[in-house]
Amino acid sequence: MATRDSDRIDTVETFFLDFQDRATRALEEEDGEARFAEQRLEGEGGGFSRPRVLSDGPVLERAAVSFSRAVGRTLPGPATAGRPELAGARYDAVSVSLIVHPRNPYAPTSHANFRFFRALPQDQDPVWWFGGGFDLTPYYGFEEDAVHWHRTAKAACDPFGADLYARFKKACDEYFFLAHRGEPRGIGGLFFDDWTEGGFERCFAFLQSAAEHYLLAYRPILARRKHHPYGEREREFQLIRRGRYVEFNLMYDRGTRFGLQAGGRIESILASLPPLVAWRYDWKPRPGTPEAELYEKFLLPRDWAAD
Amino acid sequence: MATRDSDRIDTVETFFLDFQDRATRALEEEDGEARFAEQRLEGEGGGFSRPRVLSDGPVLERAAVSFSRAVGRTLPGPATAGRPELAGARYDAVSVSLIVHPRNPYAPTSHANFRFFRALPQDQDPVWWFGGGFDLTPYYGFEEDAVHWHRTAKAACDPFGADLYARFKKACDEYFFLAHRGEPRGIGGLFFDDWTEGGFERCFAFLQSAAEHYLLAYRPILARRKHHPYGEREREFQLIRRGRYVEFNLMYDRGTRFGLQAGGRIESILASLPPLVAWRYDWKPRPGTPEAELYEKFLLPRDWAAD
Repeated sequence: MATRDSDRIDTVETFFLDFQDRATRALEEEDGEARFAEQRLEGEGGGFSRPRVLSDGPVLERAAVSFSRAVGRTLPGPATAGRPELAGARYDAVSVSLIVHPRNPYAPTSHANFRFFRALPQDQDPVWWFGGGFDLTPYYGFEEDAVHWHRTAKAACDPFGADLYARFKKACDEYFFLAHRGEPRGIGGLFFDDWTEGGFERCFAFLQSAAEHYLLAYRPILARRKHHPYGEREREFQLIRRGRYVEFNLMYDRGTRFGLQAGGRIESILASLPPLVAWRYDWKPRPGTPEAELYEKFLLPRDWAAD
Repeated sequence: MATRDSDRIDTVETFFLDFQDRATRALEEEDGEARFAEQRLEGEGGGFSRPRVLSDGPVLERAAVSFSRAVGRTLPGPATAGRPELAGARYDAVSVSLIVHPRNPYAPTSHANFRFFRALPQDQDPVWWFGGGFDLTPYYGFEEDAVHWHRTAKAACDPFGADLYARFKKACDEYFFLAHRGEPRGIGGLFFDDWTEGGFERCFAFLQSAAEHYLLAYRPILARRKHHPYGEREREFQLIRRGRYVEFNLMYDRGTRFGLQAGGRIESILASLPPLVAWRYDWKPRPGTPEAELYEKFLLPRDWAAD
């Protein structure tokens, strides 16, 4: 049965809130000790947010898993690059965002975001779309992790169309790219926006699949690497690479820019930033090192899911 | 005698290169141990840059004092907010930039930049202007430092017009402002752009005065605070506040954006970023602490130079 337009956002919200619960539980289990602190913040018109942040765990140096519902606000420009005609329209939106910065440099940072927008342009029918995706940022590359990550991303997509994974992977490689350095942020994953293909039910089913597969993709990698022995050298490299993460989020990320322009809560938006970061002048990896290997074998678009 | 248009840029370059020498020497003296590493990088059309960076000194955790000369390039948008009609024009420019991140949290970060542009719009006479200024970012506030800093800035301006200091101080307060946090970057100083008032000789004399007074303003403060006892708490606050510095430079700074858009050298441009930075979720200073005092007494526009 088709979901009525006015019920859609509630339907997606219910899924997001439950997904937030499961994701925080999974991450707390992987950490084994630290717990997420939760807040509930009321917004305008019945909107609210539920940021959850975990800090200083033995495994997770920082993790943020946050839900928000915005009601009856006005769309700023960056909300949807593909729909400039909607800038200024009123909208409702729900989103859930995850960012995990493990302490261990052998465990990659991961990020996921899922969102549903319903815009109400004047004198026109409501317009809705989904957006989201997930991507992985390793500090030290492991082929088996990259293959697992991308095969799981592909498995999320395959039931919804044979070409989806290829399209969304390409969009992810293009989006998470530091133009000023000519360097990708990490090894990618999935990225989609303005997603309406096949109608609401099908798109929502895909979104749920993507969210579930994020956990299936990330958790085993985190479990495998979280106790890998490391020293000062690896920590230093991690802090330097985290600088790239900060550069991307502050300079390019549409979600960050949208959130700040839409008057979002600074602390929730910038909870994505790593807890400790270094910039070294003119730092380059020495040839033949594992640090150089990250650049040579991982930080470039590759078809990791190929058989 | 009036300097001919075609000689002006060489005249300014000579001053900038000498000023760079004196500034690096002064900073090395304050550090007492570490030395600037220098590179000379050739650019297009006879342009070149001379970045100098000092890292990991006992007093200076990082300092960058860099000269560059760009020749015959094309002006990107952010070069001059006040002259949008020049976007796309060919230009020559010389600039010198300084950034000092002391290790001691009681010693403030300081920044200065001085630049001269000569644009050659098609079918029109050449257009030139100066820009620049300096600003101070303390982690712990000292009234006497703030007063000295601003009185010295005022002394740089006063011979050139009774209202200059007030105008350039206001422009500085407006420019170094983190809109997303509603918070100034520091306690300000001077900021000017598109500066042509009174003609080249007078503007150049003012620029030299501003550059000299930057050293007079900063060096005694650095000398006074560089050995102030501190512990983990102050270091932590410094790292958090440095995060604001990163946010400003990556999100707002026109020099950074101009440099990256003009195809500048990434490492030179981002040498302004602090070497180590922290982001803490939802961190707020506790009332009644010296950290709270920074916000309450220093991070707001004040007339520090008043008698």
